[in-house]
Amino acid sequence: MINLHEATKDFQKYQLPYDLNLVSGKILPKPHIAYETYGTLNANKSNAILICHGFTGDQFAASQHPITKKEGWWQGLIGSGKAIDTDHYFVISTNVIGGAMGSTSPCTINPNTGQFYGVEFPLITITDMMNAQLGLLDYFGIDTLLCAVGGSMGGMQILELARFATDRVKAIIPIACSWRHSAQNIAFNEIGRRAVMSDPDWHKGDYLNHNLKPSRGLSLARMVAHITYMSEQSLQQKFGRNLQTQEFFSYNLEPDFQVENYLQYQGTSFVERFDANCYLYLTRALDYFDLTTHSSDPASHNNICNKKSLREVFQHTKTKFCFIAFTTDWLFPPSESQDMVRALNAIDCDVSFVVIDSNKGHDSFLLDHPEMLSAVKGFLNGIARNEGITCE
Amino acid sequence: MINLHEATKDFQKYQLPYDLNLVSGKILPKPHIAYETYGTLNANKSNAILICHGFTGDQFAASQHPITKKEGWWQGLIGSGKAIDTDHYFVISTNVIGGAMGSTSPCTINPNTGQFYGVEFPLITITDMMNAQLGLLDYFGIDTLLCAVGGSMGGMQILELARFATDRVKAIIPIACSWRHSAQNIAFNEIGRRAVMSDPDWHKGDYLNHNLKPSRGLSLARMVAHITYMSEQSLQQKFGRNLQTQEFFSYNLEPDFQVENYLQYQGTSFVERFDANCYLYLTRALDYFDLTTHSSDPASHNNICNKKSLREVFQHTKTKFCFIAFTTDWLFPPSESQDMVRALNAIDCDVSFVVIDSNKGHDSFLLDHPEMLSAVKGFLNGIARNEGITCE
Repeated sequence: MINLHEATKDFQKYQLPYDLNLVSGKILPKPHIAYETYGTLNANKSNAILICHGFTGDQFAASQHPITKKEGWWQGLIGSGKAIDTDHYFVISTNVIGGAMGSTSPCTINPNTGQFYGVEFPLITITDMMNAQLGLLDYFGIDTLLCAVGGSMGGMQILELARFATDRVKAIIPIACSWRHSAQNIAFNEIGRRAVMSDPDWHKGDYLNHNLKPSRGLSLARMVAHITYMSEQSLQQKFGRNLQTQEFFSYNLEPDFQVENYLQYQGTSFVERFDANCYLYLTRALDYFDLTTHSSDPASHNNICNKKSLREVFQHTKTKFCFIAFTTDWLFPPSESQDMVRALNAIDCDVSFVVIDSNKGHDSFLLDHPEMLSAVKGFLNGIARNEGITCE
Repeated sequence: MINLHEATKDFQKYQLPYDLNLVSGKILPKPHIAYETYGTLNANKSNAILICHGFTGDQFAASQHPITKKEGWWQGLIGSGKAIDTDHYFVISTNVIGGAMGSTSPCTINPNTGQFYGVEFPLITITDMMNAQLGLLDYFGIDTLLCAVGGSMGGMQILELARFATDRVKAIIPIACSWRHSAQNIAFNEIGRRAVMSDPDWHKGDYLNHNLKPSRGLSLARMVAHITYMSEQSLQQKFGRNLQTQEFFSYNLEPDFQVENYLQYQGTSFVERFDANCYLYLTRALDYFDLTTHSSDPASHNNICNKKSLREVFQHTKTKFCFIAFTTDWLFPPSESQDMVRALNAIDCDVSFVVIDSNKGHDSFLLDHPEMLSAVKGFLNGIARNEGITCE
């Protein structure tokens, strides 16, 4: 059993020099933000690109993950000569607060008690995640990002950036995301949370201080979520009704089908690199996300009462948008990006929209789809040219 | 905690006078079949209609459920003057073997040990369920059913009937079903099974003999399944992002959204009327279901090796078909009924196909959709007229 706190101890981190005021009204004492950078910041600090990861992602977007040893999750997108070309851009990739890869979260130590935070950690929102990252940009002396790019929960974060801090980002590329979590998505997340919290080893959230881990529950949560990341078509194409090893049905209750073993493997391997309480907190942040219920102040308390239209939400934004969505993504269907594109068009914002034909569902955004790579490259080149940065 | 064995003790049952040979090669000693009937069997026994229930359904199709006190799940379809008119037809509605409402199942007593079967119960298939019901028809002296009607798993059962015992049924109405369980459906079922089997109170399947019940696991399994019975649209329309009680987010880990409470209620109430091992066995039967991998003999062993086309499957059938499917059913999408309709048309079978526009997902088949009621009524009248039974 990997101790995530130990495993992430030496990861590159920046500690905010101030306490973070959260949307909930609570305070997070001087949080750490774990991050990676790729490329070089130019003299006038105008070539910075922020990468925001999805729900269970991390800062290792374009470098090997130290725990799983897998290559970066956007290695196909980011690097020398790639769509996000590190020969020209300075790329910052962070782990969100509440994430499990070194940023302050339920699985780090509460400075007030010397114990793991666990469920004493305050609830955080997508807004809080982005607000914390602004502190890291300050540390680098970056007033304005050239671009922010994010998929899924990462897309939500950068939409927040364009909403409440448009001065700090010239352009954003929100990929496979939405302006709010749907009822169905909330439902799936609630199942994940119940799975974790029903596991006796969750120990009312205090498992780390008791050297326990709710692996069964977390694994189950991941299995459910994983189905929503794929499409019916991709599951059918990849596995169909193929059996695992035997020629015939076993006629017992153990997995017979390849798809069952695949899901179990996804669950089991996930437990190695993620924390169960982080899972609870991040799903909650996702469920709370709804651009139309935010006030203008990122740290305002109980902001749900301010219901706005998407046009009103973005009425003051100067940021350029390039939305990317995938046809078989049923977690964040293209129609939900379309809602934003329509609103932005109606208020004369600069907005592109790329819908990519893919049968791989939500996970398409992680699969180096050539259309995605070329859309990102083209859009970025245009932005860079506007800013007098030569990339070709 | 309701003891299902006690609660179903006095339900109407018929015990097969012989041991049932199962597809797996195992034997089920003289199983009981719990059933209800509505209407009167005519003199030449030509007006019988068999109703087959879905996965977690029961024999109380048109009468009050003795445990939940709810009205019959197809009360809108079956009754005096209704689409399945009990003034004219004799309706038999059974609980499948492996079901939790009185038929022989993991939660009944194993006659060989005097203990609850639990996971000593042999695996059963959809074929076995139908085969057992033929024994009940023999008891009533019914050689040939006028019609068999079933939704979801019930649809699968009657497809089996038309496949391996076409002489025993003039016509079938398979509703919201498929010719096989897809990879995605298997995946969701596997999650349900893991949820149950991960619950320590499952006690390796022997919970009933230890006065335990894996309620958390079974409840979780139901919550997952329930999402697949609805549609994204219906969840959004019914709940959207509405909060349960509070005006603002609670900023804690407890349910905030109505959809979360709704799902939890579905899970909790389900546990009262269902058995966890039955859940395991019936999901397995669903997963194993694939018309194209059956041999012609319903009790043949290891029949998965005989892969056929749907045309070959039905090549000897004389039964008439009326398929009904619902547009937003993503568990058994209309395209999967269409596969069967296409094959049956190609081999000159008598087949109708009604696709009903509904935003209620798979559950539409339980919701008395007027189009469904009129399709069933019209098709049945035609069949009855052909057989010289006057219904108008």
